[in-house]
Amino acid sequence: MNHPFSLGSPVAVVQWSTDDEAVELLDQTRLPAQTVYLRIRTVEEMHDAIKRLCVRGAPAIGIAAAYGVCLSLRHKDLTLNEARQHVADAVSRLATSRPTAVNLFWALDRMTRVSSDHATFAGYQAALLAEADRIAAEDRSLCDRLGQLGADRLADATRFLTHCNAGALATGGSGTALAPIYELRRRGRSIEVFADETRPLLQGARLTAWELHSSGVPVTIITDSMAGCILRDRAIDAVIVGADRITARGDVANKIGTYPLAVLAKYHGVPFFVAAPYSTFDLKICDGRDIPIEQREPDEILAAAGWASAGAPSVFNPAFDVTPAELITAIITDRGVIENPCQQAIESLLHPAGSE
Amino acid sequence: MNHPFSLGSPVAVVQWSTDDEAVELLDQTRLPAQTVYLRIRTVEEMHDAIKRLCVRGAPAIGIAAAYGVCLSLRHKDLTLNEARQHVADAVSRLATSRPTAVNLFWALDRMTRVSSDHATFAGYQAALLAEADRIAAEDRSLCDRLGQLGADRLADATRFLTHCNAGALATGGSGTALAPIYELRRRGRSIEVFADETRPLLQGARLTAWELHSSGVPVTIITDSMAGCILRDRAIDAVIVGADRITARGDVANKIGTYPLAVLAKYHGVPFFVAAPYSTFDLKICDGRDIPIEQREPDEILAAAGWASAGAPSVFNPAFDVTPAELITAIITDRGVIENPCQQAIESLLHPAGSE
Repeated sequence: MNHPFSLGSPVAVVQWSTDDEAVELLDQTRLPAQTVYLRIRTVEEMHDAIKRLCVRGAPAIGIAAAYGVCLSLRHKDLTLNEARQHVADAVSRLATSRPTAVNLFWALDRMTRVSSDHATFAGYQAALLAEADRIAAEDRSLCDRLGQLGADRLADATRFLTHCNAGALATGGSGTALAPIYELRRRGRSIEVFADETRPLLQGARLTAWELHSSGVPVTIITDSMAGCILRDRAIDAVIVGADRITARGDVANKIGTYPLAVLAKYHGVPFFVAAPYSTFDLKICDGRDIPIEQREPDEILAAAGWASAGAPSVFNPAFDVTPAELITAIITDRGVIENPCQQAIESLLHPAGSE
Repeated sequence: MNHPFSLGSPVAVVQWSTDDEAVELLDQTRLPAQTVYLRIRTVEEMHDAIKRLCVRGAPAIGIAAAYGVCLSLRHKDLTLNEARQHVADAVSRLATSRPTAVNLFWALDRMTRVSSDHATFAGYQAALLAEADRIAAEDRSLCDRLGQLGADRLADATRFLTHCNAGALATGGSGTALAPIYELRRRGRSIEVFADETRPLLQGARLTAWELHSSGVPVTIITDSMAGCILRDRAIDAVIVGADRITARGDVANKIGTYPLAVLAKYHGVPFFVAAPYSTFDLKICDGRDIPIEQREPDEILAAAGWASAGAPSVFNPAFDVTPAELITAIITDRGVIENPCQQAIESLLHPAGSE
């Protein structure tokens, strides 16, 4: 399918510029009011762009970081040893941008493993860019596959509730949580989506609403505090969200507010789905409580209320929470749907017997 | 006790001006950044001030409306018949300002019942003002009594979670939900409060945080979406909220987001309290689903996300939700604490045998 919100011409969330000079990022902090592209030229600029959430969403962060590594060699003429050191420094720096989404570390790991056994510096440069391109292209395919499997699983669903943005803007393709919705729409289903606005940074009201609305999918924005009533009164067929990291037992770190939504879904008997590609699983961690949770600045919450930072009350501002596997009906991945997620089911899907 | 946030000099939320010219309202839309008083001179200005939430909170709305009725006769010289008509018109107009909080209608009803059998117009004027003063003074006593009964009930609690603002700013006294907290503090308890910011209008982050912080009560602002984690991880002793209307069976209309908070409290085994004076009960309604729920403008939600109204997605913006009695541990009133609220318990407290 076309990029969901392409509106006639493709809109890329992250791409290497055609003049080979920079990474182009759609500045998501300025949507929906403005569609502005940033030209990111250095590792430091990419670190800043990820930290400021100009690009966000676990898969998109991975792609941006991979291209960010390529920037470390741009406009340079280095020995291969020097180049390896530049790449290692870039990986270390980018790894400090945001702690929770595991796709960041997964993508940086792939870039680290690109062979530097090339005859020339230029060859190494090209190999790194090729790997970043592969990560981006693969993500597009993963989204398509996830969308198809999700649409099969949710074939009878028409009314969805989602949180934050796990759509095209969060990935290199049609999204994770929103991919099945776009696919159901493509199959001719009549769909309606309620989007939590997702405080403090309003990714739901700004990004999910923007991309669904642009794509012609009926969407209603609600405050996060209205989800309870919507689940009780509006015959929601499914809650579906993305993920920033999924543990070996199926605990899910995702945008703050996901956990209470899962509890509310359970209370109202509404199935609760998580959609994520295989790269979002972190099998080195079992218990979700061991996932590092990013704490963000108080001002993200205080500013809206008109508090100056000095003299303001305390603020608690974790960017994510963890939903235990017990509250999740199924995890929809590009490799299959994991019903009643547990360690065994996850392992057998990600590492089927006979695979390496 | 002194007014909680008096900071040395009393701050009144609503009062008749000393020059007998106007009602003075603390403009709560401008807190915490600015402390500005409005001088309200006409019924229409009062209608607008209530609608715009310059004054809000069920008890404070009742007081403001009562003084608003007095404004209908200000600077006039009328026959008693004309005066009665002006009062009736003012009552009708003010009754359309906000539909959910029953204290508004209760206060207007009291003003309507003020006898107009006076020898003079001036006598009727004075009687109306005396009744509005009585409503304000009574509310102060109700808050004190409710605070004492609540503090007795919650004597062992130290960590609270609250939603919206049901404090001094919402009443003529020390608040409803916050009154027991102020009283516990006065009794020397060490208290900690988590305040939901309460989208879309942020009464928690702006008003509850401001009055607790000003009063020296440690308060931490969270987004509404963080309450789930706080209830799971922070050993909260009690959730306590106010109410805009309570039905005969104990269903509670309160600020949007109260219902999901009650579900989350239940899930985590945290007791859930509602605090309200007797004037918040509406015994003519039994089922909470029959309470009229105010729907507010989409812009209250859209503006923060940077959407222009034209061309924006749909928005759902109810100001209140209804929490069924089953989810409420107890209702703390000025007349006693109603455990496991049900119709019989409420009736016997509000209309004890032998009373008229």
